[in-house]
Amino acid sequence: MKRITILAGGVGGARFVRGARTLAQATGAEITVVANTGDDLWLTGLRVCPDLDSIMYSLGGANDTERGWGRAGESERVSAELTAYGVGWPWFTLGDLDLGTHIARTALLREGLTLTEVTQRLCLRWNPGVRLLPATNDEVETHVEIVDGSGRTQLIHFEEWWVRHRGNVPTRRFVHRGLESSSAAPEAVEAILSADVVLLAPSNPVVSVGTIIALPGVAAALRTTAAPVIAVSPIIGGSPVRGMADICLGVIGVDVSAAAVGQHYGARTQGGLLDGWLVDPVDAGELPLLERAGIPARSLPLWMNTDEDSAAIVAGALQLAGEVRGP
Amino acid sequence: MKRITILAGGVGGARFVRGARTLAQATGAEITVVANTGDDLWLTGLRVCPDLDSIMYSLGGANDTERGWGRAGESERVSAELTAYGVGWPWFTLGDLDLGTHIARTALLREGLTLTEVTQRLCLRWNPGVRLLPATNDEVETHVEIVDGSGRTQLIHFEEWWVRHRGNVPTRRFVHRGLESSSAAPEAVEAILSADVVLLAPSNPVVSVGTIIALPGVAAALRTTAAPVIAVSPIIGGSPVRGMADICLGVIGVDVSAAAVGQHYGARTQGGLLDGWLVDPVDAGELPLLERAGIPARSLPLWMNTDEDSAAIVAGALQLAGEVRGP
Repeated sequence: MKRITILAGGVGGARFVRGARTLAQATGAEITVVANTGDDLWLTGLRVCPDLDSIMYSLGGANDTERGWGRAGESERVSAELTAYGVGWPWFTLGDLDLGTHIARTALLREGLTLTEVTQRLCLRWNPGVRLLPATNDEVETHVEIVDGSGRTQLIHFEEWWVRHRGNVPTRRFVHRGLESSSAAPEAVEAILSADVVLLAPSNPVVSVGTIIALPGVAAALRTTAAPVIAVSPIIGGSPVRGMADICLGVIGVDVSAAAVGQHYGARTQGGLLDGWLVDPVDAGELPLLERAGIPARSLPLWMNTDEDSAAIVAGALQLAGEVRGP
Repeated sequence: MKRITILAGGVGGARFVRGARTLAQATGAEITVVANTGDDLWLTGLRVCPDLDSIMYSLGGANDTERGWGRAGESERVSAELTAYGVGWPWFTLGDLDLGTHIARTALLREGLTLTEVTQRLCLRWNPGVRLLPATNDEVETHVEIVDGSGRTQLIHFEEWWVRHRGNVPTRRFVHRGLESSSAAPEAVEAILSADVVLLAPSNPVVSVGTIIALPGVAAALRTTAAPVIAVSPIIGGSPVRGMADICLGVIGVDVSAAAVGQHYGARTQGGLLDGWLVDPVDAGELPLLERAGIPARSLPLWMNTDEDSAAIVAGALQLAGEVRGP
């Protein structure tokens, strides 16, 4: 399994990818990461791509491991200036070092480069050891239909829902703005089609992996590829590994359990996406349910505290891929 | 003389305007500043307006008085990031605090505000005590035609000529890119037409005041206004008060003397712009020459070391305005 393609969200996705890189350093595998771009936004005239940057910084060793996101050694001098001018979102932190990335990205985009090309250019600096691709070059941004204090329906950007409201507001649905006129990045589709194995990281199944899959061309590529598609449960013992996947699943009416999310992705043999599904041992009781749904499933420890933990999960996913592919 | 309108460049212009403000605080006059925008540029996707910012920071008390330009307490963390990404001009300093202004300005411009509106909005924070206007809302940028090392003619942005080359390169001419399709800002024209007196600051007569005057509508307004137009020599004893006016004057073939610059602006009675001209006592020997050219001229100390120095110069200019206006 030389070519491994991973669909991933931001911080959790980065942890999973670091494990894959650790494994690949031993086996010589090549890793391509297709990252969620649904959280992207224009903020004060700058293009911000939270998930791409989380992965880039983490793989480049520049992430803030204590805080869990953003750059290590970050400061917020520019942000304070913007607040003084009354510009931007005061509740959305734009660190100075992080702003360097946003400014560089925006300058390159305005020169006419695609987001795929820009990401490649930015990664030259960080040597992430993987090929990092945005899921699309188009601006497809996740918005959230909420009910505000006066009972009115409002559409707000996902980052406002997530960072400002912490998802703690009556929520009707997620909307992918710009989806209709978009397409998946050709490089991302090709990475799925030419892979030896495709892994879905234990990222948010609704607003990270779900948003990638919603892009025109991605689901078709996942169904067409000769590679087995193996996913890792982002739910352990009825709770999300990190983030607010439980709230997001509630919005789309899916139970917060490893089995329910597996069934939400569905068995590839029955029109779904999965050739295999990994759950944590605490959820081993759900394995028969998954098998009955046609989804080959195994249990192994899914907590990613170290790169070695993540590497073991990736190794388990590759083993399952070998089993489901058959002799 | 209640309404004073000043045409000004950046750092030197700011010193002159501070003096005018000091004087106005005693007399109740209202000051409007029409600032040069020819040095403006798009840099890494951000709109940078050096002269507007120099005046805004200086009048707002936020300028770096030791360095002579930019913000006090400045740092360059973001700039180092841009350099690491290979984006931007490494020789053009973008301070973190200054970047806050550029980002805020760019965000507001992209929302559709004119530069005049944006400047007003940014000034809300700084309380400059004067009305600060850009000379134009259009993008008219000064470029410089130089001869490069291999003898080829090149057009470079003024800031590249000024900051990177320090003007020390064979120079053919200055070009106002975008001038043909531009017009002066309506507010700037109105400020000239409705003034009781118009002052030309001792800023660079070629690339600061000269660039403002070159804008379609400005020279006509200066010739039409009922207000006397009084200018202050930027040349003292054959040398520029600050900056590289000597090199700029050389490029357009004007001698570096108070009399020559006065004659370059010309007597309003003879198709030029000036109703009066102030020179330093060291240049008093040139007064007869100026009078013969039809330009009423007086000498008084023109060095601006303190706000009080500048206020005395403005007071002298207002006195001359009263004299030339007649009874």
